[in-house]
Amino acid sequence: MSVLNSIASPTLLLNEAVCKANIDRMSKKAKEHQVALIPHFKTHQSLEIGKWYREFGIDEITVSSIQMAAYFSGQSWQKIHIAFPFNPLEIDLLNTLTKSCPISIQLVNVQVARTLAERLTNPVDFFIEIDAGYGRAGVEVSDFGTIEAIMRIANRSEKLAFRGFYIHAGHTYHTDHSGIRKIHEQTKSALKMLKDKYCDEFPEMVTRSGDTPSCSIEDDFRGIDEIGPGNFVFYDLTQASIGSCDKSDIAIALATPVVDIKKETHEILVHGGGVHLAKDVLTNPDGTNNYGEVVLLTEQGWTIPTTTSFLKSISQEHGLIKATDELLNNTQIGDILGILPVHSCMTADCMRGYLSLNGEKLDHLKGQKAY
Amino acid sequence: MSVLNSIASPTLLLNEAVCKANIDRMSKKAKEHQVALIPHFKTHQSLEIGKWYREFGIDEITVSSIQMAAYFSGQSWQKIHIAFPFNPLEIDLLNTLTKSCPISIQLVNVQVARTLAERLTNPVDFFIEIDAGYGRAGVEVSDFGTIEAIMRIANRSEKLAFRGFYIHAGHTYHTDHSGIRKIHEQTKSALKMLKDKYCDEFPEMVTRSGDTPSCSIEDDFRGIDEIGPGNFVFYDLTQASIGSCDKSDIAIALATPVVDIKKETHEILVHGGGVHLAKDVLTNPDGTNNYGEVVLLTEQGWTIPTTTSFLKSISQEHGLIKATDELLNNTQIGDILGILPVHSCMTADCMRGYLSLNGEKLDHLKGQKAY
Repeated sequence: MSVLNSIASPTLLLNEAVCKANIDRMSKKAKEHQVALIPHFKTHQSLEIGKWYREFGIDEITVSSIQMAAYFSGQSWQKIHIAFPFNPLEIDLLNTLTKSCPISIQLVNVQVARTLAERLTNPVDFFIEIDAGYGRAGVEVSDFGTIEAIMRIANRSEKLAFRGFYIHAGHTYHTDHSGIRKIHEQTKSALKMLKDKYCDEFPEMVTRSGDTPSCSIEDDFRGIDEIGPGNFVFYDLTQASIGSCDKSDIAIALATPVVDIKKETHEILVHGGGVHLAKDVLTNPDGTNNYGEVVLLTEQGWTIPTTTSFLKSISQEHGLIKATDELLNNTQIGDILGILPVHSCMTADCMRGYLSLNGEKLDHLKGQKAY
Repeated sequence: MSVLNSIASPTLLLNEAVCKANIDRMSKKAKEHQVALIPHFKTHQSLEIGKWYREFGIDEITVSSIQMAAYFSGQSWQKIHIAFPFNPLEIDLLNTLTKSCPISIQLVNVQVARTLAERLTNPVDFFIEIDAGYGRAGVEVSDFGTIEAIMRIANRSEKLAFRGFYIHAGHTYHTDHSGIRKIHEQTKSALKMLKDKYCDEFPEMVTRSGDTPSCSIEDDFRGIDEIGPGNFVFYDLTQASIGSCDKSDIAIALATPVVDIKKETHEILVHGGGVHLAKDVLTNPDGTNNYGEVVLLTEQGWTIPTTTSFLKSISQEHGLIKATDELLNNTQIGDILGILPVHSCMTADCMRGYLSLNGEKLDHLKGQKAY
């Protein structure tokens, strides 16, 4: 791969073809099941990559912070949804942003709804986030008191408009196929119950669900109007391990220079650590830690070896690979190995910029221009 | 604290007084034991903070990448040491840097030594990194064949100059007082053996050891000429847990806005997750995960509550605190809580900028100017 010759230090490679195929697949699936795809951009955080979704008819997007919403606000999306319980300290930022960009937000309690009703200067749609078992954020699904108190505040407000219910079932990331199925059924059931209960009062309301595992694996979206997955754009080893994707669907790999080889312990030391990959970790069948898996960089991108070499440990800058005989015999100091990330959202957030296979640099919200 | 009023989103607070006290303490200890302190700057990665060391007589520093060396190269340090096995793909970058800045590097194999001898255009000092049991990087302590082969290459080179041996005993981070003592004895013994063996041939050679736990806890540095700890500038909960510092010595805290409170489950949801803190984790005595501990922000900085509330889980942007009754009863949505980090180097690398208690913004190598 000619672009390899330009790499001297850890660099995040992006395979545009794989990435676009992921967007295409999810987009087709959404159309087939008649759900709107409102993709989450927290994974890539890139204006350039954001543009690619246009080809697939996407016109509304999801982000995870007001700073991320501001970053994408110049791209004329019909609406940007901030999928995080609204932080009342950021109302002034929100009022500035909504002067020029249609925004929706998430509410999980009465107090913030009240504060917004008092202080919003421009119209804002909101979803009520529901906790259907994940236990991270959201109103309990049976807490109709809170749900209806928020609705009443919105009904009296000229600025706050109720748009529907949102569930992020993040616990699908930590289970298997049957677990994902069970959680997906809970999500659908919760959203259907809420829609049945409130659709007379709010006939325009929608239900939205977000997680990549359910959206990748499941084929029954009854009760769900909109989906907002994000990770599918790149996928990663976590998603491959729970069956959301194949490893060949993973669209990013960290290029890591080989700085030492220890034949006797089957270890290869690379420049690539926690500041590049983040420290998300999988557990191998034998109980050892896996911080990423080796791929072989080629002119077309990378190939996945038939036997797995993996990062057994990482520190701030160091990565230590447990290598197969095959890898050990074909690797030299000064080579560059690719590493498939355990959690692509976090790796992209660490690296803050991409290098495409044809040598183009792509932006990231938090990146410097030259990375 | 008036600076609190300027915070709406997650922000990394730096207590300058605590930080300078940490530098002062380590500097005095080094002088007392007649070892030179060559502090590692990978923890703070900040020009502004770097300047503070000058007050304590520091004139040589350590970094972990060539990019970090370049960042600090304008500050007239007498020498910058890159404490990472040299990556031969970066020789051109090194040749550029050494035109204007004295650099030393680390070598762990013959091949890179040979490549450097052929291609260096300016003089470079090097340490041979020794693996005395950590198992991450370095020449085996008894591998005199490799050590002497590297020395022979340097002897024939006009550019490569052997400076001494370097050991980073990173396994002290994962043990306790008696474990640290044992590792420190191994480090000293290894360095003393190597010095005895080679000091006739290289009378100017030095021995250097790096880890913060040993440098913080131990009081016998015989056999060690120079120390290069880094983390001590901020410390963190990991260091407090192994006894390197008190929690009151931790110099940074992540300011996190409170977005929801769940009284019944004793949980507080904050904006502060893996992209802010990194995902390093400690295990509480009861087996639960601990991604950071709550401190109460005040006008003078922060206070540590007598009972511990901690981050029980984090995702990309979310942090979920398990709160004590005391914290729960005194916290409102819209408040800002401080979080002491588990691993300050990684948290600083995520946040890439600091806000001092008097409202001054301090730089970070990877940060944008406005963060």
